[in-house]
Amino acid sequence: MARILTGIQSSGRPHLGNILGAIKPAIDLSKQPENESFLFIADLHSLTSLKDGPTRREYTRAVAATWLAFGLDTQKNTFWRQSRVPEHTELAWHLNCFTPVPMLQNATSYKDKVAKLGEQSASAGLFTYPVLQAADILLYDANIVPVGKDQRQHLEMTRDIASSFNHQYGEEVFVLPEARIDERLMTIPGIDGQKMSKSYNNYIDIFLPGNELYKVIKKVVSDSTPLEEPKNPDKDITFQLYSLIASDEQVAEMRRNYETGGYGYGHAKKALYELIVDRFATERERFNYYMDNNEALEAELRAGEEKARAIASRTIARVREKLGFN
Amino acid sequence: MARILTGIQSSGRPHLGNILGAIKPAIDLSKQPENESFLFIADLHSLTSLKDGPTRREYTRAVAATWLAFGLDTQKNTFWRQSRVPEHTELAWHLNCFTPVPMLQNATSYKDKVAKLGEQSASAGLFTYPVLQAADILLYDANIVPVGKDQRQHLEMTRDIASSFNHQYGEEVFVLPEARIDERLMTIPGIDGQKMSKSYNNYIDIFLPGNELYKVIKKVVSDSTPLEEPKNPDKDITFQLYSLIASDEQVAEMRRNYETGGYGYGHAKKALYELIVDRFATERERFNYYMDNNEALEAELRAGEEKARAIASRTIARVREKLGFN
Repeated sequence: MARILTGIQSSGRPHLGNILGAIKPAIDLSKQPENESFLFIADLHSLTSLKDGPTRREYTRAVAATWLAFGLDTQKNTFWRQSRVPEHTELAWHLNCFTPVPMLQNATSYKDKVAKLGEQSASAGLFTYPVLQAADILLYDANIVPVGKDQRQHLEMTRDIASSFNHQYGEEVFVLPEARIDERLMTIPGIDGQKMSKSYNNYIDIFLPGNELYKVIKKVVSDSTPLEEPKNPDKDITFQLYSLIASDEQVAEMRRNYETGGYGYGHAKKALYELIVDRFATERERFNYYMDNNEALEAELRAGEEKARAIASRTIARVREKLGFN
Repeated sequence: MARILTGIQSSGRPHLGNILGAIKPAIDLSKQPENESFLFIADLHSLTSLKDGPTRREYTRAVAATWLAFGLDTQKNTFWRQSRVPEHTELAWHLNCFTPVPMLQNATSYKDKVAKLGEQSASAGLFTYPVLQAADILLYDANIVPVGKDQRQHLEMTRDIASSFNHQYGEEVFVLPEARIDERLMTIPGIDGQKMSKSYNNYIDIFLPGNELYKVIKKVVSDSTPLEEPKNPDKDITFQLYSLIASDEQVAEMRRNYETGGYGYGHAKKALYELIVDRFATERERFNYYMDNNEALEAELRAGEEKARAIASRTIARVREKLGFN
């Protein structure tokens, strides 16, 4: 079985873009019999940008509830909070001692952030972010790490750090992970047509109560073609969003409605709203269940933490032995 | 009770210079009823310069055996290996996120090491060394940290990081430690008259078997004044070393011998050797006991680790609560 490892950002409540672009594909991957998925909520990494405790706690719970709501099989796979497995930060220290400072200084994502925030605002946490990532990956002997193109360099660093460690001790202490670059990565449009993103404030939170959700969907941008005239579905955001969720028959029907005329954007938005509520009825219910029943959520996460620690502690024992800490 | 915290380097077997200059004074301090000493072997820090596992294991054992041989009271105080208390590296990650990169770039000891080793050889471990130190100190709510002048800046950094954290959460999460600069810090001469240091290879290992120890002491540098002539004790290294260990009467007697003449450096060296073997008879025996009985050594260290973890885990719980990791 190939071990596929994915770190899940916990910088907000997951929206439709996260769900269609990342969460559902990862869950589909985790269902393949030849794969075992390791999925962790990267709450330690979130400390580099988010300092507020209650916000982090809420985001972490919402992220966990979303993955569980979308049917992640926590028996087959391993799902945990990074901060609850202290081996992550222990290994990060050890790996720091095998990571040249210039490698981190040359990291594109660090340089971009420094350019944006200014020298003074860059923390040692941000600087050593890729080392904690390397620890996340190497702790679980992961074979495959699906990454976006912007994360490719970080995975190269993981491989470099692991190679340098293995070379020092003349042994394959760490498994070298392979990147799997997803070229087909879907970009989900937000309500303004830009990429759906929390930072653009153009996202659809599918877990909102019905009336609030409908309010958001009514704000999807459309042109001013009058109701009675035919419309071009391929240029309309509501149609694009609908297409991402609906069945082929539903899409074909809405396309006919657009092209025939006498069908307004308001009709399409109502259809989109109803489709979301219908298509994600189970997920909305389960999300609310986990958000309202913290004990059920905690039980799932704690079981995952135990599974993760069982593996992580074996890796750390191997590392300590090599380093003379045992 | 004031909590006094000291990190013990584990970069070699302690020699006479370490013992007289650091270990005995720290043990004396730990005996004062108003103090509670926290003494840990900084083996995680040693990874920044030493990669070989068996060497680190041996050094760590020798350091522990030395402190125990010199009578450290592990009931009253707390004595442990840093690497066995995972809260050190966990807190170091959290503090990394509150440490500006420019603060670390400006650390004098880092700049000195980079100048010596070259840019390429500086690791992220070396770079974030002061952050792990801050974690060591803040984990135990230490009030006082005895430091040499070269470590003063690192303690200032600890205070800055702690203040920035406390300020963020509007609360005294961390105790701000005070530096105690020891101005009278003894410099112990090595056998060549320079400061006794492992790196000068001029040290006296008092735990050597008698014949080997005597061989080292015979190498103490002296001038060529003939045996029968009077000698100036204040310019002689053997006399200086003797004075650091002997009683006032013994020192006065050797001074008379030097000034009278008919007393050679060979006599003085023999006297120094005999004094060391006599004065440190118990310590030599106990050192060998602990080196030969690993279980007894481990039992002491493990008891210390438990005491340390009991405190460290309370501090980490406080920190996690603030950061939203609980």
